[in-house]
Amino acid sequence: MENNKWYRTDLVDETEEFINHKTAEERETLRESTGIKVLEEERGRVKITRVDVDSSGADEIGKKQGTYFTFTIPTLTPDDEEGFKQLGEVLAEELTTLHPFIKDNKEGKVLIIGLGNKTITPDAVGPLAIDELQNSATSIQERCIIYAPGVTGQTGYETSSFIKALAEQIKPALVIVVDALATRASNRLCKTIQMTDTGIHPGSGVGNMRKEISKETIGCPVTAIGLPTVVDGPVLIADAVDTLFQSIAAKIQEKNSPSSALSVTPWRPSDTSKVDLEVIKPIFGEWSTWPKEERLQLFEESLVGHDRLFVTPKNIDEWVHNYAYLISDTLTEWIEST
Amino acid sequence: MENNKWYRTDLVDETEEFINHKTAEERETLRESTGIKVLEEERGRVKITRVDVDSSGADEIGKKQGTYFTFTIPTLTPDDEEGFKQLGEVLAEELTTLHPFIKDNKEGKVLIIGLGNKTITPDAVGPLAIDELQNSATSIQERCIIYAPGVTGQTGYETSSFIKALAEQIKPALVIVVDALATRASNRLCKTIQMTDTGIHPGSGVGNMRKEISKETIGCPVTAIGLPTVVDGPVLIADAVDTLFQSIAAKIQEKNSPSSALSVTPWRPSDTSKVDLEVIKPIFGEWSTWPKEERLQLFEESLVGHDRLFVTPKNIDEWVHNYAYLISDTLTEWIEST
Amino acid sequence: MENNKWYRTDLVDETEEFINHKTAEERETLRESTGIKVLEEERGRVKITRVDVDSSGADEIGKKQGTYFTFTIPTLTPDDEEGFKQLGEVLAEELTTLHPFIKDNKEGKVLIIGLGNKTITPDAVGPLAIDELQNSATSIQERCIIYAPGVTGQTGYETSSFIKALAEQIKPALVIVVDALATRASNRLCKTIQMTDTGIHPGSGVGNMRKEISKETIGCPVTAIGLPTVVDGPVLIADAVDTLFQSIAAKIQEKNSPSSALSVTPWRPSDTSKVDLEVIKPIFGEWSTWPKEERLQLFEESLVGHDRLFVTPKNIDEWVHNYAYLISDTLTEWIEST
Amino acid sequence: MENNKWYRTDLVDETEEFINHKTAEERETLRESTGIKVLEEERGRVKITRVDVDSSGADEIGKKQGTYFTFTIPTLTPDDEEGFKQLGEVLAEELTTLHPFIKDNKEGKVLIIGLGNKTITPDAVGPLAIDELQNSATSIQERCIIYAPGVTGQTGYETSSFIKALAEQIKPALVIVVDALATRASNRLCKTIQMTDTGIHPGSGVGNMRKEISKETIGCPVTAIGLPTVVDGPVLIADAVDTLFQSIAAKIQEKNSPSSALSVTPWRPSDTSKVDLEVIKPIFGEWSTWPKEERLQLFEESLVGHDRLFVTPKNIDEWVHNYAYLISDTLTEWIEST
Repeated sequence: MENNKWYRTDLVDETEEFINHKTAEERETLRESTGIKVLEEERGRVKITRVDVDSSGADEIGKKQGTYFTFTIPTLTPDDEEGFKQLGEVLAEELTTLHPFIKDNKEGKVLIIGLGNKTITPDAVGPLAIDELQNSATSIQERCIIYAPGVTGQTGYETSSFIKALAEQIKPALVIVVDALATRASNRLCKTIQMTDTGIHPGSGVGNMRKEISKETIGCPVTAIGLPTVVDGPVLIADAVDTLFQSIAAKIQEKNSPSSALSVTPWRPSDTSKVDLEVIKPIFGEWSTWPKEERLQLFEESLVGHDRLFVTPKNIDEWVHNYAYLISDTLTEWIEST
Repeated sequence: MENNKWYRTDLVDETEEFINHKTAEERETLRESTGIKVLEEERGRVKITRVDVDSSGADEIGKKQGTYFTFTIPTLTPDDEEGFKQLGEVLAEELTTLHPFIKDNKEGKVLIIGLGNKTITPDAVGPLAIDELQNSATSIQERCIIYAPGVTGQTGYETSSFIKALAEQIKPALVIVVDALATRASNRLCKTIQMTDTGIHPGSGVGNMRKEISKETIGCPVTAIGLPTVVDGPVLIADAVDTLFQSIAAKIQEKNSPSSALSVTPWRPSDTSKVDLEVIKPIFGEWSTWPKEERLQLFEESLVGHDRLFVTPKNIDEWVHNYAYLISDTLTEWIEST
Repeated sequence: MENNKWYRTDLVDETEEFINHKTAEERETLRESTGIKVLEEERGRVKITRVDVDSSGADEIGKKQGTYFTFTIPTLTPDDEEGFKQLGEVLAEELTTLHPFIKDNKEGKVLIIGLGNKTITPDAVGPLAIDELQNSATSIQERCIIYAPGVTGQTGYETSSFIKALAEQIKPALVIVVDALATRASNRLCKTIQMTDTGIHPGSGVGNMRKEISKETIGCPVTAIGLPTVVDGPVLIADAVDTLFQSIAAKIQEKNSPSSALSVTPWRPSDTSKVDLEVIKPIFGEWSTWPKEERLQLFEESLVGHDRLFVTPKNIDEWVHNYAYLISDTLTEWIEST
Repeated sequence: MENNKWYRTDLVDETEEFINHKTAEERETLRESTGIKVLEEERGRVKITRVDVDSSGADEIGKKQGTYFTFTIPTLTPDDEEGFKQLGEVLAEELTTLHPFIKDNKEGKVLIIGLGNKTITPDAVGPLAIDELQNSATSIQERCIIYAPGVTGQTGYETSSFIKALAEQIKPALVIVVDALATRASNRLCKTIQMTDTGIHPGSGVGNMRKEISKETIGCPVTAIGLPTVVDGPVLIADAVDTLFQSIAAKIQEKNSPSSALSVTPWRPSDTSKVDLEVIKPIFGEWSTWPKEERLQLFEESLVGHDRLFVTPKNIDEWVHNYAYLISDTLTEWIEST
């Protein structure tokens, strides 16, 4: 979570394209557009979104060509052992999907790197996963090489250069980088694992190759596993305001609908039916009909001069340790099974 | 920060009386009301609010009779050594103000208790301060008795009963409890020390004497030092919306005022001039003119079914360690000087 | 492991009586003496020594009346999961043996206290076991009250007074104190659990009642569970010299014996057959025939002016964490089963 | 402190040459021998031994050509702030002596590597020093690149290869490796800093180039800073037995000497006057006149089948943290001053 980390959080389904195409029908359109394939699936309690971007799609949405996964359990809590187990299983399955070449390259090492600053709890999930991998009495060290180098501000050396230096000597079959992320979706905070074979590319699209960690810069496949552990303050606020508007509008519509007696479940961010926000304008004013992104911008501007607050759940220690165990256990089992 | 901790955060100047009497003039009225004396002062960069409530004032605002201090540096950052030094000095000075009897009772022990759960970073500030006090090579142990008992959910024993059991044997001259707090004012988060000689009384007014830690229940003076390290999600959101409304309304008023050219400083929560929110109603709707508390309630209701998110700054580890050192150093110096 | 802790380590079978009666036959004599019953047993790999001392026996050997257990696995290593499991099972069984009254007093609380200084690894086993008990998601807190108060030098308050203050309010059915010990037998270091219902009585026999933690001072049964994690430097040395002498003497005797071809196992401290040390006098001199205790005294005197070295195995962290888990798990299971 | 670390501890003045030439006169002879220069000096309380070995000397004593420093305060204790300060100052001075080229190469980076396993306290001094360097708010990161890679058993990658991979990219002006050591001299335990510009060469003389970390293998100057934090059990024992013999023999000689009334100071390992061990043969036997190394061998043989006990002082945490601060502070100041 160094300064530029914000940009890394733009996983495909958090880009503006997706945000502005919220309804089911509209997503369908996107799915059919050239160059982008979106698959949504539920496996147990885990919602899986897989987005494949080819070269034409990359131009269209400004994301790198490759495969992007999101695994989410919206109801996950820190003591939900069953939930973490399911997340781990899905992660292991899709690790296999994403890396068919590993089975054919038993000699090749897997270089596992945990990024982040261990002294900042929400950024510690990468280093803590490495601690687990390094100190467990497994034989993972025979197949893997495992480091938590620390952040550039601590080490005095660009993390991407560190990985390049090692990769040049080791010639690994695969590099896996584990990192904490800032998310733009507060309802995903600590409930999601993101995985992509496009690596890590801060300021994506801007072409900051120096800090990029990817096949292009490292010379071997790079898979990034990201855990969203903080959310930007204004985003949290804009999301909550959006939830409020959607929720009130849904209630008003419900009342006016003949089937309202049957419909008691509250509105949830995942609902794909379009709510007509016009009905709430008298109470919440003109801005309630604006796109959410514009309200976010308003919050960001009005909070200038205040601290830029990245916020994290109160029990972040527990979340972070749970994910460190999950990543360590899943990678160990996956490596042993390949 | 056990479940009931929320209620403890109602320091006098966060009560509804204060929230609904925001302007300078209105505060003045409150100051003159019977039974409550409010003193505001700046010492260096530290804003000091001292509220004295006598028995008639206690009835009026529903807070316990006693003295309440708030020490704030609104611009404090984790690496602001000078700021922490100033906070510590003011705390030491007011510890002396609040406990004139300590100088006359050199035989009496001071029982220092750090409350909270050490495994949850924002709740660890009390136990960490105790760690510092216990392991520093000072002679504070001659005058003080120092414990971090852990929370009831860990120990199986009510923390107030723990303190009572010790106090009965030790008959201390003073009990000091150090605790993390949830604050209702997000702009105070990690920038404030609160101190009161009324002790800790969860669910104040409700009469839950069992958990109260005060002169009445312990049998000797009890001073609480509180550090606000988390903020309730809906409060953070309602505060931000309020800031947005005030800020936009202030800008509109400014444009209409002849002196607007001179006034370029952005609106800050501490501004006491009343902003007319009617001007923003077309954009932000009816609710923008409601009392802030009603918007907060709306956010709380719309987020039912979502996690109750207590949020904390990203670099909470650094804040918490800084405050642990500050409390340990200040108490050590204060004890040595008395 | 406060200054007086050395004395606490004199578990019955480390007293001079035992040391000077090394052979099997001689032990038999002691067993038959009035007032002391010694039972030796192996359960799996665990060697169990149970010593019951009645009031006449207490006079004879200067140990308090009560029951003393030692559970040892001489070949235990830190990664020997099976060994730790066996130790835990035996401990649970004998906890039941020692406390038949617990089953009949389901209302009575069990007060569990971890003694020691958490910042000194070999002394941290008690506090670490408490950490485990406090933070595990079990329901042990319903039946137990659990504290790690820290040592007197940290808290400013005598640990025995702390326990007394709590016990007075709680009136527990049983107090269990967990503590690290200095052992006089270097071959037991980190391989032994000691348990006694006589509590903790530093400077036993001397009558320092102030620091004693026992039924007499606390007012309810007190069981001490002790883990030997350090050994006094001179003791380590005297033990090694003794091992050398016994080992060489045994080899010489073997050569002179007709069955020597069959006997290839090296001498081990647990061997009970008497070795004739006269045979080694030409090489090792007069002192090789002295009682071991006199050689120990010589080492202690010659090292005066040097540091008093309490030594600990290099991988003490691992040992200490293993025992913390073992104690926490065993106590949890035992409490749940009663 | 990986398995081969034992060998690394053979600093020049722990080699057999030195051990067998104990008296002042004999050392003098060594000093005059071709190819080896020994300088002994006291600066404040710090005893400094500097050994320069040239190519002919290297052949003679089987140590690598280069400069070897030992800085010792025999009376150092963990809370001896003044002592640590003096050690740090001497270390800084000799860092300057040893690296005159640093001043002329302000562009060149200094690669600082902390070796060892952070989860084993006596082996954690290197990683902990790196933690301090990485997290202090200094500008050392502009000039230095700082890593604690962990041990090969954790990372799956040879530590020497790790350093080589980085050095190849960074082309540093200097590599500094900080490491915990096992010492052969128990009276030096935690009281000594060793420094050499010959790097780290496990199994020295044996030619295990793969694990060597030196100018020859890394391609730039490599300075090793070593902190002896553990001692091999048999060595501790042999040392103590030696101390006993010397001490008793010295006392006997004293009695027979006319000046005995004046001489009351006990024998200390640093005494260079030769004691005649013949006088103690009646009590301690033939072996008391053997070279110490032969007694050590005897202890090693007799303890076969027992654990190989590497021992460490009880308060090793405190020692290790003190040295981590010392190394971090000294390197920071030294870098800033060059």
